[in-house]
Amino acid sequence: MVSSRPAESSSRPARYELLTLGDELLLGLTANGHLSFVGSQLGRRGVLLQRNVTVTDEAATIEQEVRRSLAESDVVLVTGGLGPTVDDRTREAVAAVLGQKLVFDESIRDAITARFAQIGRRVAENNLRQAYRFEDGEVLPNANGTAPGLWFERDGKVVCLLPGPPNELQPMFTEQVIPRLERLGFLRQREAYVQIRTAGIGESALELKLQPVLQPFGEALSVAFCAHQGHVDCRLSSPSGALDLVRLEEIAGTCAKLLGEDFICLGHDSLGRVCADLLRESEKTLAVAEAATGGLLAHAFSDLCGACKFFAGGVVCCSQDSKMLLLGVPECLMLQHGAASAECSVAMATGVAESLQADYGLAITGFAGSTGGAGGNPIGAIHLALHTPQGTWSRQLSYPGPRGTVKNRSVNAALDWLRRELLRARSGSTASSSKFGALQ
Amino acid sequence: MVSSRPAESSSRPARYELLTLGDELLLGLTANGHLSFVGSQLGRRGVLLQRNVTVTDEAATIEQEVRRSLAESDVVLVTGGLGPTVDDRTREAVAAVLGQKLVFDESIRDAITARFAQIGRRVAENNLRQAYRFEDGEVLPNANGTAPGLWFERDGKVVCLLPGPPNELQPMFTEQVIPRLERLGFLRQREAYVQIRTAGIGESALELKLQPVLQPFGEALSVAFCAHQGHVDCRLSSPSGALDLVRLEEIAGTCAKLLGEDFICLGHDSLGRVCADLLRESEKTLAVAEAATGGLLAHAFSDLCGACKFFAGGVVCCSQDSKMLLLGVPECLMLQHGAASAECSVAMATGVAESLQADYGLAITGFAGSTGGAGGNPIGAIHLALHTPQGTWSRQLSYPGPRGTVKNRSVNAALDWLRRELLRARSGSTASSSKFGALQ
Repeated sequence: MVSSRPAESSSRPARYELLTLGDELLLGLTANGHLSFVGSQLGRRGVLLQRNVTVTDEAATIEQEVRRSLAESDVVLVTGGLGPTVDDRTREAVAAVLGQKLVFDESIRDAITARFAQIGRRVAENNLRQAYRFEDGEVLPNANGTAPGLWFERDGKVVCLLPGPPNELQPMFTEQVIPRLERLGFLRQREAYVQIRTAGIGESALELKLQPVLQPFGEALSVAFCAHQGHVDCRLSSPSGALDLVRLEEIAGTCAKLLGEDFICLGHDSLGRVCADLLRESEKTLAVAEAATGGLLAHAFSDLCGACKFFAGGVVCCSQDSKMLLLGVPECLMLQHGAASAECSVAMATGVAESLQADYGLAITGFAGSTGGAGGNPIGAIHLALHTPQGTWSRQLSYPGPRGTVKNRSVNAALDWLRRELLRARSGSTASSSKFGALQ
Repeated sequence: MVSSRPAESSSRPARYELLTLGDELLLGLTANGHLSFVGSQLGRRGVLLQRNVTVTDEAATIEQEVRRSLAESDVVLVTGGLGPTVDDRTREAVAAVLGQKLVFDESIRDAITARFAQIGRRVAENNLRQAYRFEDGEVLPNANGTAPGLWFERDGKVVCLLPGPPNELQPMFTEQVIPRLERLGFLRQREAYVQIRTAGIGESALELKLQPVLQPFGEALSVAFCAHQGHVDCRLSSPSGALDLVRLEEIAGTCAKLLGEDFICLGHDSLGRVCADLLRESEKTLAVAEAATGGLLAHAFSDLCGACKFFAGGVVCCSQDSKMLLLGVPECLMLQHGAASAECSVAMATGVAESLQADYGLAITGFAGSTGGAGGNPIGAIHLALHTPQGTWSRQLSYPGPRGTVKNRSVNAALDWLRRELLRARSGSTASSSKFGALQ
């Protein structure tokens, strides 16, 4: 067993590796969400995950990779292959590497039995394969599934096995794994970096704009840019430790001032959350209507806790009929200008705000699909409209690209417009006149 | 240079590894989309990617990983780190491993210059770092960016460097890399597996049910199960080649018959797509109303091409007001039973079908959030309702778990119910009486 070491005192930071198992990852059937989740959880606690390996779930392969990772790292996290079926071989393979016997654990069996009883099912023979732990290891109970996590420490190193389903892994990681790693001094109390989130400015333009602020710090400051679909993040860190977090935050603050309205936030808040905070603050409500983005815009808000307080609801249109029926868009307007038009987007924004008695109405219409638009509208031509207490405006965007990209960019463009409008309303300006983010 | 070998004739299939570089992947800031893309592209051509390694973009780390992969594999694909800035080190690191000089290539320089001229920019000094190739290697032109791909063959092995941006990597991979791999005999003409998609049956129960069909094939048949949030997939393959694709499909067909309504499809179609096909086939339309899932149910349909033909639209409710305003749910009903009730779900399903003049109405209400429900409704208590030409029914589900899980499971449960109802309508049965999938 390792002895606990005080946080931040070790000369060498703990080295973490993540081993994600499953043919479904290698076949591209399931995205490797565990890398995103574990990587960001560790990143927020001052640790950069050093390596992630995804391999098939054959016993010999698992053994080889665990042996390699264990030789090179302090903490080896392994996900997947703990299920009840014959293709779940992680437990046995890791036990072989560690030279540990697997012992039947009655507490696990009781938890599995209780879980099955709760959902009115009988425990099958193969489910009891999950009731084994390493002889010198510990069990991490699973509140959301049958496979418990397994924890093993030796010679200052940790091996931790986690179940594959994200809804089981994630709470287990934050509630049980993180506190254990903290106790061992394997985490820091703070993020490894400060993130500046921006919209309306491209990656290279952002780099040029921030250069006068960032360049003077030379080698002491590490800067990384990452472009997403509708916003660009800039990460500041100091791998040498020459600049502490307070100093990094000061530098980020200077950047934020320089960026003006293009600055969204420090950290990881989504555009939806930033808009939600501004709506709550001003005690205003929002309704949305969307044709090209089919539910994604509504989801940006309804996914937030307590959304009912500021989000009045949304309408997802598909046919021309539904626009008219639910939003009161006049038929003659649709016939004259088409469903994917500035005129229609304005009628949608106003219509949904009035129908749902909301202060703001945000609408998206256009053609995101690959089968193109009628009436001379090219694929990727999107119309946004924003209804506010001061008036209603529309904007046209054009995003050539695959359907998913067009949808995400359209939603982010709409949210960014609303964000700028709410900022402007807060500062007392009344006209929707400022720059509209030309999202890259 | 390797000599071309005929497809399918080699005794040992080519072994592929993928190396994805970038701190943003390890910090969980960007999803590893290259794994999903490359994995599925290879999977469709009979190849299971054997290993994916994600590491930081330090030169020593890249060298170590490339050396390892090259020793163990036939094809090593490397993504990222080909940009113009100082933190792009892939080209040099791989050249060191291969013992290759990097030589300036005028055709690359010309392409970069032409690209910059097109967007009205001048080529900067650091952009010319991208104009180098391996001395004995080839260039893969990049139609969508400045960094070309680099291709190198020796001793029957391939090393291929690809640019990081997905919109540059993806066309380069399908248009240039795949044809080269085909010519070398490193790909097959068909998928590597047959997938049976199921709902309403748990992973372990599914294994037990299919055992009589699958077990007789012994070692010749490889079986893998993968549980998602609301459906379970079973993949059949024959790594030894003892069973060909026709035989695998026959076996899958036998499984499908055994599963009855729990069988969704062979392959990768979503529940939304399967429902869409059934709606199209019967020339019926659907409208949806959702309170707990905030746009996800609508998105399952509006994401499909030509959705307007069967999808009349959706309403995303959040407050009680919006249910009354848009769906005509009577206020007295909401007051008596609450917004998260069977009664309200039925009124929503009927209301949205009537408002949008659709044949079917599907509604979800309840509490997916972590702040719990009023009126004695526990967190995760979800009410579904299905309005059909024959009548309207409701069901209560309970999914304890994080908000995202509850939402996905609720949407999949609703879609699966609709799917079973549409199957029943097609077969001439009129009552919603059969088993409702107890989704895990």
